[in-house]
Amino acid sequence: MARVLSSEVGSHVGERVTLQGWLVQVRQLSRVSFLILRDRGGTAQVVLQDGADRELVSSLHRESVLEVAGLVRPRGDGREGVELVDATVAPISPAAAAPPFDLFRPALDLPLPTLLDNAPLALRHPSRAAVFEIQAAAVHGFRAELRRQGFVEVHTPKIVAAATEGGANVFPVAYFDRTAYLAQSPQFYKQTMVGVFERVFEVGPVFRAEPHDTPRHLNEYVSLDAEMGFIRDHRDVMAVLSAVIAAMLRAVAEDAGAALERLGVALPEVPDPIPVVHFVEAQRLLGHPDPAGGDLTAADEAALGDWARRTHGADFLFVEGYPAAQRPFYTHPDPARPGFTRGFDLLFRGQELVTGGQRLHRHQDYLDALALRGLSPAAFAGYLQAFLYGMPPHGGFAIGLERFVARIAGLENIRLAALFPRDQARLAP
Amino acid sequence: MARVLSSEVGSHVGERVTLQGWLVQVRQLSRVSFLILRDRGGTAQVVLQDGADRELVSSLHRESVLEVAGLVRPRGDGREGVELVDATVAPISPAAAAPPFDLFRPALDLPLPTLLDNAPLALRHPSRAAVFEIQAAAVHGFRAELRRQGFVEVHTPKIVAAATEGGANVFPVAYFDRTAYLAQSPQFYKQTMVGVFERVFEVGPVFRAEPHDTPRHLNEYVSLDAEMGFIRDHRDVMAVLSAVIAAMLRAVAEDAGAALERLGVALPEVPDPIPVVHFVEAQRLLGHPDPAGGDLTAADEAALGDWARRTHGADFLFVEGYPAAQRPFYTHPDPARPGFTRGFDLLFRGQELVTGGQRLHRHQDYLDALALRGLSPAAFAGYLQAFLYGMPPHGGFAIGLERFVARIAGLENIRLAALFPRDQARLAP
Repeated sequence: MARVLSSEVGSHVGERVTLQGWLVQVRQLSRVSFLILRDRGGTAQVVLQDGADRELVSSLHRESVLEVAGLVRPRGDGREGVELVDATVAPISPAAAAPPFDLFRPALDLPLPTLLDNAPLALRHPSRAAVFEIQAAAVHGFRAELRRQGFVEVHTPKIVAAATEGGANVFPVAYFDRTAYLAQSPQFYKQTMVGVFERVFEVGPVFRAEPHDTPRHLNEYVSLDAEMGFIRDHRDVMAVLSAVIAAMLRAVAEDAGAALERLGVALPEVPDPIPVVHFVEAQRLLGHPDPAGGDLTAADEAALGDWARRTHGADFLFVEGYPAAQRPFYTHPDPARPGFTRGFDLLFRGQELVTGGQRLHRHQDYLDALALRGLSPAAFAGYLQAFLYGMPPHGGFAIGLERFVARIAGLENIRLAALFPRDQARLAP
Repeated sequence: MARVLSSEVGSHVGERVTLQGWLVQVRQLSRVSFLILRDRGGTAQVVLQDGADRELVSSLHRESVLEVAGLVRPRGDGREGVELVDATVAPISPAAAAPPFDLFRPALDLPLPTLLDNAPLALRHPSRAAVFEIQAAAVHGFRAELRRQGFVEVHTPKIVAAATEGGANVFPVAYFDRTAYLAQSPQFYKQTMVGVFERVFEVGPVFRAEPHDTPRHLNEYVSLDAEMGFIRDHRDVMAVLSAVIAAMLRAVAEDAGAALERLGVALPEVPDPIPVVHFVEAQRLLGHPDPAGGDLTAADEAALGDWARRTHGADFLFVEGYPAAQRPFYTHPDPARPGFTRGFDLLFRGQELVTGGQRLHRHQDYLDALALRGLSPAAFAGYLQAFLYGMPPHGGFAIGLERFVARIAGLENIRLAALFPRDQARLAP
């Protein structure tokens, strides 16, 4: 008999169906056993009466893989839903050991290292799986909106000859007889591709050899990158980003509604438009005296988040016009405000969620910007080639996928938003 | 005036429109100049009569970025299509140098190293861009079909503690104070995730430190991976793969029809079902005496491709049942044929396009397989954890994206199917 998913059982009342899945729990009563089976559709309750079947399931470790066949009927205990009765059980793939912790409780209340060390098992818990259902939906929304707006997906190399964003914080790779590096971002390549497709996006890993150990940083993460040409200024980029964030949240609501429910998460609203504050105005609101030299601390961002909620009723806030000293060399200056740029951050509830901006597009501006920072143009030859041959005004943004999901799902540590996180101490599983 | 794309100009006859794009070519006649402008929609012809404008465009290098405004009318030379007349031109971002080769001819007839060294410029040629429009469409089709079939997209780490598929051919990474490696495939992680979502896919870079220098290999490429649980055997995987290949080709036809036309490429048909030949039968067809010890050479594959075309009228052919000695340790044996496995290859016109198979799923089978190859289970602890706690029969496949596109587009070197290819000698641009 063809396999049916637990989520489909409700439409088979009065029929015999076959389920396949993992043994979550068995409750032995005096005359029957209740078996909970998990599959990718959810869980199903199975009532066993046959003595040999009851003995079999009580002899198996939890997480054993079973096939169960039975008659679907409304639950006998008066609760909503259905269950399988007159059921038979056959083992497909018995677990070789008992799981070191319980997966059948609604919450998986374990210390972080236990969760991460045992990720292959812990991820099976519906509360952990839910995070990655949200992740998959968010990425789908990111791509769908950009495709709708004429962006082309690209794949650029992760092994590069030199550091992308500066000399520090790169992982060296032994590349045959020389040293290469892992790309810190697809920044240079996505800008280069504006010359080809005008509008591009990429979803891929980026690598940061930063020796930090915080709940907000990973050494490898997934970056959702977009870049677009023929803009007037960074505001055009902010408009696309706003539409992308809204599409990501819509996709999460559509594709991962059950996951949100399991986590007890309510999605934020994306205001249209998202309020914008200039860096100088933000500093004034914060009571800081010297905006051009300053930056925003985590506490500043939190205070701005409170301000956005109070003043605009908004969970999202754009801060635009960061000082040049705080932004990478390729950031386009604001011609109207010397010392400030067309770079922006998108804050979500008082934390940076996305960074973006307009970039330089003239070849000479790149030579000047590199010279100003004492960087040799020879190290950027491939990148500079794109600007030598005519590049339109352009800009883009990068969303850290794990950060996005952690913030949306209310996870206290970004490691919980990566299947198999990488930090200074962790390379496995 | 809002920007219009060259592809939209035809629906604005009788109106003035504004275009923005790259200067492809200027032909100066005695009283007018013909300017070809390229944007992401294609190219447009602009007729300039104003002396100052004609002087301006003749003074600019090709590939300069311009804004052009003009009246749309049917072409004056009697050919099909429209052109802009009464046009004015303004430079947006002049090229700083003359391109070292012409982009305006229909073909870009340059040696491979010139194409690759100058990728930021060469990729702007419609024949080069077309390859990556096909690539983007193929990846979209891959994901769309798998999503439709209930697969969940995952993102797994590219920095790993140990070699995935065996000891050789990995790139070492200096990971803080220890040595890590770049993942050769997401194989172990995608299998692990079958325990969580049953059906998963991943699109991401993989890294092979193989010192080969052939037209068919890259040291970094994009792998399209899928893995699925609760299968009967490898034939279930082959059925999903067949649907995925068909969906990829459909997506290419839908999204990248113009690109196919530019390259003069006709897409192959995917037979339903794709013919299947067992490895032993293939060896018999080839007249080889000792199937269990043998493998298929490139010449064998070519001969099988001819056979499939002759016998089945098919461009695609599955070869199933490869000998255990030719497949990785996690390959599921064929219980009916000792020494042979449930591993398969999909050949396209006589070349391997996809590898896949059913995997082992019992913990003890993994311990036995590792022992047989003299591998220590300790090095595979994270991977083995997934099998300790109950894993269903499962299998999957991996499609090399660049190889797929190169074969479909008829490119003679796989480097032409990567934006910025990586080989032993090439780390830039």
